[in-house]
Amino acid sequence: MIRKLLVANRGEIAIRIMRSAQELGIKTVAVYEETDRFALHIMKADEALCIGPGPRKDYLNIDNIIQAALRVGADAIHPGYGFLSENPEFPQKCREAGLIFVGPPSEVIWNMGSKVIAREIMKSVGIPLIPGTDKLPPGREGEEVAIDFARKYGFPIMVKAVSGGGGRGIRVVRNEGELLQGLKLSRSEARLSFGNEDIYLEKGIDRPRHVEVQILADNYGNVIHMGTRNCSIQRRHQKLIEIAPSFLPPLVEERVCDAAVKAAKAAGYVNAGTVEFLVDQDNNFYFLEVNTRIQVEHTVTEMVTGIDIVREQLRIASGEPLSISQDDVSIRGCAIELRINAEDPKQGFLPCPGLIEVYQSPGGHGVRLDGAVYQGYEIPRFYDSLIVKLTVYGFNWEEAVDRLRRALDGFSIVGVKTTIPFYRAIVDESDFRARRFDTTYIETHPQLLDYREEEDEIDKLARLVAEINAHGFNPYTESP
Amino acid sequence: MIRKLLVANRGEIAIRIMRSAQELGIKTVAVYEETDRFALHIMKADEALCIGPGPRKDYLNIDNIIQAALRVGADAIHPGYGFLSENPEFPQKCREAGLIFVGPPSEVIWNMGSKVIAREIMKSVGIPLIPGTDKLPPGREGEEVAIDFARKYGFPIMVKAVSGGGGRGIRVVRNEGELLQGLKLSRSEARLSFGNEDIYLEKGIDRPRHVEVQILADNYGNVIHMGTRNCSIQRRHQKLIEIAPSFLPPLVEERVCDAAVKAAKAAGYVNAGTVEFLVDQDNNFYFLEVNTRIQVEHTVTEMVTGIDIVREQLRIASGEPLSISQDDVSIRGCAIELRINAEDPKQGFLPCPGLIEVYQSPGGHGVRLDGAVYQGYEIPRFYDSLIVKLTVYGFNWEEAVDRLRRALDGFSIVGVKTTIPFYRAIVDESDFRARRFDTTYIETHPQLLDYREEEDEIDKLARLVAEINAHGFNPYTESP
Repeated sequence: MIRKLLVANRGEIAIRIMRSAQELGIKTVAVYEETDRFALHIMKADEALCIGPGPRKDYLNIDNIIQAALRVGADAIHPGYGFLSENPEFPQKCREAGLIFVGPPSEVIWNMGSKVIAREIMKSVGIPLIPGTDKLPPGREGEEVAIDFARKYGFPIMVKAVSGGGGRGIRVVRNEGELLQGLKLSRSEARLSFGNEDIYLEKGIDRPRHVEVQILADNYGNVIHMGTRNCSIQRRHQKLIEIAPSFLPPLVEERVCDAAVKAAKAAGYVNAGTVEFLVDQDNNFYFLEVNTRIQVEHTVTEMVTGIDIVREQLRIASGEPLSISQDDVSIRGCAIELRINAEDPKQGFLPCPGLIEVYQSPGGHGVRLDGAVYQGYEIPRFYDSLIVKLTVYGFNWEEAVDRLRRALDGFSIVGVKTTIPFYRAIVDESDFRARRFDTTYIETHPQLLDYREEEDEIDKLARLVAEINAHGFNPYTESP
Repeated sequence: MIRKLLVANRGEIAIRIMRSAQELGIKTVAVYEETDRFALHIMKADEALCIGPGPRKDYLNIDNIIQAALRVGADAIHPGYGFLSENPEFPQKCREAGLIFVGPPSEVIWNMGSKVIAREIMKSVGIPLIPGTDKLPPGREGEEVAIDFARKYGFPIMVKAVSGGGGRGIRVVRNEGELLQGLKLSRSEARLSFGNEDIYLEKGIDRPRHVEVQILADNYGNVIHMGTRNCSIQRRHQKLIEIAPSFLPPLVEERVCDAAVKAAKAAGYVNAGTVEFLVDQDNNFYFLEVNTRIQVEHTVTEMVTGIDIVREQLRIASGEPLSISQDDVSIRGCAIELRINAEDPKQGFLPCPGLIEVYQSPGGHGVRLDGAVYQGYEIPRFYDSLIVKLTVYGFNWEEAVDRLRRALDGFSIVGVKTTIPFYRAIVDESDFRARRFDTTYIETHPQLLDYREEEDEIDKLARLVAEINAHGFNPYTESP
């Protein structure tokens, strides 16, 4: 078993990884940039190492992080999500340095990271694909391929970066003019964002649901799935709310999960991963991509299956076979996850870094918190604006939604604007309650941004404090 | 459905009840004594009413609380645990006032509160009883009955108060001298504690396990069980750590659960309740008592079944049939609950009320908190010393114990001594890890009190803060 784990990440995911490591008796090492020196993950580790002035660039410096690991005697590195987690050089260089990388092998990350190669692999084992092109040739030749594709499949069409991922590098075009302009814009964006200007096309699916399957695979060819998640509620292709299970008809659910296992096997997958699909209105599903890392939303799967995914990751990376078989995986109830961010939804979700003056969080049955902050912490402006990830469980959908509303009301966060009132508006909205949503939900419900600015909980606290103060030591005006 | 619920309690259980009420759309009313005016439950309610100067007596004043409920237009009262929860007058007077009492009818509380009547009812339906006497006659006649009983069943013998409960009013005697003296002492204690000096005898069981079954019953004759809990780890007959399930052999587990359902039916039980048993070394089980209220440890059952017991209580009290059948109840994994108290275990668990200067709590997968305090709260000396109830879930026993250790390490509580280091000692102890424990565990493991005084987490935080401060803005002495 791994003895000492360096977590090459920050915030909630670094802490979440350290928790499972600690439970397995593995020593933990945090790394941090100078600009991040008051971050909570530093305090949760057994050891902490500053790896540079930051911001961001040192969390992306592979050689420096590997040196840090060697220096403190760590034998493994967990990349978390974001930062270096999907960089195929990272596991490669870890291996060269004699370190265990907690994730799939370099080749798998490389292949799945190339959307074109991933499609080829999936096609070879019969996984349904959205009709699409190969990598477009440059210039006029690419334009001609694009126009032919549009004539064959019609609009809308998705223009996608070959090296894209996590919703980045995607553009929807609805006519030939937009298509030709989109090719140019997407190429230049892809070059800037991913250092690779290659793009390809996919047929757009009308009001699809985003459904993904959590996969676990060990080094001995054992691959299991942990059921589905519905991540349709997105804003600009970024997931906002994730739900497990996805409430597909049972036969469709089974077929999607089987396809995901087949996809993982075809990819030679090892460790935890996610196979993403789009599901159309007739419950046809199409392969989208494989995410070769732990995902933000893995918590919902943990809540409905009761299985600790990071614990399994660490065991797999240690060379152990899967501790569970497919028969051990059962889905009970429903879980919903969302990210409480320091952002102002009314200003286009503008990040609102700042000092957290008061921080109180909900608890009780079915409430899980993966926090990244503490009272008195100043959210730096250099990183993401996540305050805490809230995951709720309910015995069924209705109970989970009731609990989500209650948990949102149980936060008292003073000092920064948060996305809580926006999420409250969603939870109270009738299509959401009725589970009628697809990837167009946010754009087709613009009224969600007309929420009240006030935070009820704060109001109530203020009122009660005033009431108690007013009564002083003689509160009998209130007593029966 | 109930529209507005007054919670006649304080602390974590008041908050826990309000959470389920809020999820069901029920308005909540807190009551508080003046000596308790900064308590957290006040802030969690929609309305809060001071019911008197306190301490304690106003939480016990039935008429006053009913008047408060009527005054604010509440249509129901939940008694929580402790205080008035097992006083048969309370539901009676609620009914007379036209209020719903969330709990069993008065007659059931009365019958189960009398240990002698409860035994008679259980005997009539064939539930195994520990050999015991009826209520002992007074004086010399009672002594003779006691001596005959001792000759027939041998020592040890338990002397118990007819009106006892929750571990109070119990004495173990090991020879005839102790027996005769015990009768006198127990009578006088019972008179002082319960206002009823009646006592009876039971045969002592050698190193028994305390196993209890959670029951739900509606007004239409539906009774289901939610599996077992092992509450053997006790200190002076008070539960310290509770575990679900109890890990009895499957056939024994089934028989205990069936017996509990039969017991509940025989008692005419309605709402949530617990049937308690002792299980001897040969897995014979004996009826102990019925607790006619929600229990502190109900959280472990919620974690392994995924069912919200208080939600069911409120639905049953509203006149709805059970929303789940026995087939909907499945037990997955293992849960462990313990109470983090402001007490000094080394001084006989002396309560240590005081100001909570820092309060940080653990989170993440499988961790549930039912809190009663906040940072800046001063624990009053008048009530129990509970800070927070910690419940952890694991896919199996080992994982649950690993997680419990991690969660205990994740607390940072500054300002008061807590029971955390004592619990850490238990979690690290080999008999506990191996699940070898019965009700004698605490007394047979006195070394548990030799724990280190320091709290590792605080040490670590202090070290890290010092380290960061020392590096100031030039921490490169640490970077690779």
